[in-house]
Amino acid sequence: MKTQVNQVGQNGDPQLAQGGTTTREQCLVLDATDPLGFTRRRFHLPEGVIYLDGNSLGAQPLNAAAAMQHAMREGWGDQLIRAWNSHDWVNLPSKVGAQIAPIVGATAEEVIVADSTSVNLFKLLAAAVTMPEVANNPQRRVILSEAENFPTDLYVAQGLSALLDGKVVLRTVPRAALRNAIDDSVAVVLVTHVDYRTGHMLDMSKLNADAKRAGAMVLWDLSHSAGAVPLALNNDGAELAVGCGYKYLNGGPGAPAYLYVKQHLQSQLSVPLSGWFGHRQPFEFASDYVPAADMRRFLCGTPSVLGTIALETGVRCFEGVDMARLRNKSLALSRLFRQLVEAQCGALGLQCISPDADDERGSQLSFSHDHAYALMQAIIGRGVIGDFRRPNLVRFGFTPLYTRYVDVWDAVAVIRDVLEQQSWRNPQYQQQKTVT
Amino acid sequence: MKTQVNQVGQNGDPQLAQGGTTTREQCLVLDATDPLGFTRRRFHLPEGVIYLDGNSLGAQPLNAAAAMQHAMREGWGDQLIRAWNSHDWVNLPSKVGAQIAPIVGATAEEVIVADSTSVNLFKLLAAAVTMPEVANNPQRRVILSEAENFPTDLYVAQGLSALLDGKVVLRTVPRAALRNAIDDSVAVVLVTHVDYRTGHMLDMSKLNADAKRAGAMVLWDLSHSAGAVPLALNNDGAELAVGCGYKYLNGGPGAPAYLYVKQHLQSQLSVPLSGWFGHRQPFEFASDYVPAADMRRFLCGTPSVLGTIALETGVRCFEGVDMARLRNKSLALSRLFRQLVEAQCGALGLQCISPDADDERGSQLSFSHDHAYALMQAIIGRGVIGDFRRPNLVRFGFTPLYTRYVDVWDAVAVIRDVLEQQSWRNPQYQQQKTVT
Repeated sequence: MKTQVNQVGQNGDPQLAQGGTTTREQCLVLDATDPLGFTRRRFHLPEGVIYLDGNSLGAQPLNAAAAMQHAMREGWGDQLIRAWNSHDWVNLPSKVGAQIAPIVGATAEEVIVADSTSVNLFKLLAAAVTMPEVANNPQRRVILSEAENFPTDLYVAQGLSALLDGKVVLRTVPRAALRNAIDDSVAVVLVTHVDYRTGHMLDMSKLNADAKRAGAMVLWDLSHSAGAVPLALNNDGAELAVGCGYKYLNGGPGAPAYLYVKQHLQSQLSVPLSGWFGHRQPFEFASDYVPAADMRRFLCGTPSVLGTIALETGVRCFEGVDMARLRNKSLALSRLFRQLVEAQCGALGLQCISPDADDERGSQLSFSHDHAYALMQAIIGRGVIGDFRRPNLVRFGFTPLYTRYVDVWDAVAVIRDVLEQQSWRNPQYQQQKTVT
Repeated sequence: MKTQVNQVGQNGDPQLAQGGTTTREQCLVLDATDPLGFTRRRFHLPEGVIYLDGNSLGAQPLNAAAAMQHAMREGWGDQLIRAWNSHDWVNLPSKVGAQIAPIVGATAEEVIVADSTSVNLFKLLAAAVTMPEVANNPQRRVILSEAENFPTDLYVAQGLSALLDGKVVLRTVPRAALRNAIDDSVAVVLVTHVDYRTGHMLDMSKLNADAKRAGAMVLWDLSHSAGAVPLALNNDGAELAVGCGYKYLNGGPGAPAYLYVKQHLQSQLSVPLSGWFGHRQPFEFASDYVPAADMRRFLCGTPSVLGTIALETGVRCFEGVDMARLRNKSLALSRLFRQLVEAQCGALGLQCISPDADDERGSQLSFSHDHAYALMQAIIGRGVIGDFRRPNLVRFGFTPLYTRYVDVWDAVAVIRDVLEQQSWRNPQYQQQKTVT
């Protein structure tokens, strides 16, 4: 991490040079010439706040309030039940899924919006372990995951295992040992592409290839990567994925999530959450479940219309955005943040625990500190919003669509100030909140 | 059905006398003296529409748009991630559940808002059949339901049965045969309290007692009753229930649903959809799932905040409403509608198929007609909104919170007119829409 932001390259992307100290003025120049500068205007960003928590809840698209108001007034309010046809609500899950598809490197027919990430994990995990080649092979009964996976991923696997009376079992290994642990006992590898705590990013292509060789499937949780790092699900051989709508996709609190299933697999998967919206003809009101032939079989109950409309405005913030360019900016922001923290706050107890190598890191950085919880509360008290993660981490996310270089510079100045003044010793910052 | 609305009783509730013909003027008098007249002002009701489809999608509470705007601006927009604490989003599912509780006759600690009705059906069905006394008894493996149940109820039971490889099976009988079919092979009786097609209402107390005697549980689907007929889950011995947020509870399109579990059972049920919000301490980010001790164990993923906020405004429309009085009005509206249709449209091909007896009927009426689909389209074209249900039914719902007696009178006048003119022969009304 000896890089530094100090000039803009010929293609408009930021160029990081070695050594020296970046100034606030140089950050302003980078912002003024940022080829992605135009997307910041697509968001509502409150005054006095530097928001480095878009990896937890994305900022609100400027169009979201109007879209919601439109749906409330012209849709639900005036059209009432008729809006399911006149506003085409019935196709919203497919429509917004198709908009997410290019962000994750899938075709429009491979993504659909539905339910929560947790519910979708259950659907695809259950569908994978009940495929005949798995169900008929008593040797292949392991869901392989990593001990430090995001909790809900592990919980859902535990719940499925209990429901199936141990017919499938969850085995966890350290993240670094995942690839070597895929043997012919493994039915599904359940992994999060970018780790929520450390920001570590797996090589999707290699892990998919390993799994394929062993005859296992991989279920990717894209919650901490989609919208922040380029994804190429099709090209990288991914078969199953789920992801969150309210992080980098800016869909709003508790936004619906989405699922990806590679086209050739869709008709082979049976979803136990067989609600009426997954039926081939829901409005026939037939007594027997016949799943839709396409991604709609991964729907369950009546879709959340208001939530999906908000999510659509978030996804549309990616229109005209080149994902490689987004990645360049994400890396430049992260490197700058890390460089400034290490130069200015390193001696004050902050230590970066995120991977150093660009290709092993998503769009976030985590730092350990002995008083991480109170420290983050104190930083938030000064208007710089990141979050705390157990046991001792402060975490900052970089959302290239709306984070500026000068935000990074100013944020680190605040963090240094809080550390120097030891503001975290203030008792008000030690009180635990419900959501951390 | 020889009753007639023609005077207001001493308690303010409508009194129906025998014989004679109700006039539009008499309807206006009933409205002017309606003790529930004050609740109509709580809703946005578009001009030129008589809405008799609140049993499918409830009308929009007048407060809904402002509540949504507040959540969008002050919450998500300005507070960003902090709103989970400052707006207490984390407790929304319990808070709105507690508001639903009195409407269904439960305690505040027995109801929680989550996911969709379909997903909640799966949770409670799976939890019921994995209780030790069921799982350890190979004889008790039947989910008993009725052949004409709402499709998603049947589909979810079919999905669970397939996932469990036939360890539990769905058995359906005609609705009238349900009570006699509960034997010691039955683990769970899965029934809808008010039938979506006919409006037939089951006697909850008797069915619960029958099931208890046979050692079976009952999972009630309240989607077509809660908010329209008084419910007394506790008093009637109900143990498990789910219901829909977007019908009589007015929660908006695809609103979150809710679950009810009798207090003593909550800690005994294991939910296979064990997402992180069901964990005893979600923000500890522990690796092992330990369910919350209370209703929160029936949550799964991150709750839909926007959807739950809209639902809250719908539920609050019941504030100050006496449910017995609501029922009186519902019955008076239904009787008046039926009386007028039979008097004015009976010879024109409409035949009521809903139960005649008040205590066997919810808050809706269905009529058969040879050209029911096109007929309903023609009626909707004239501003009276009901819906079509296969194979040959037009269906009308009566939502006492906002439907007036004069609406009933005017609606029947339109229906008679459409029938007399045979407007349904117009080809534009024969075109099938996606959602019927």
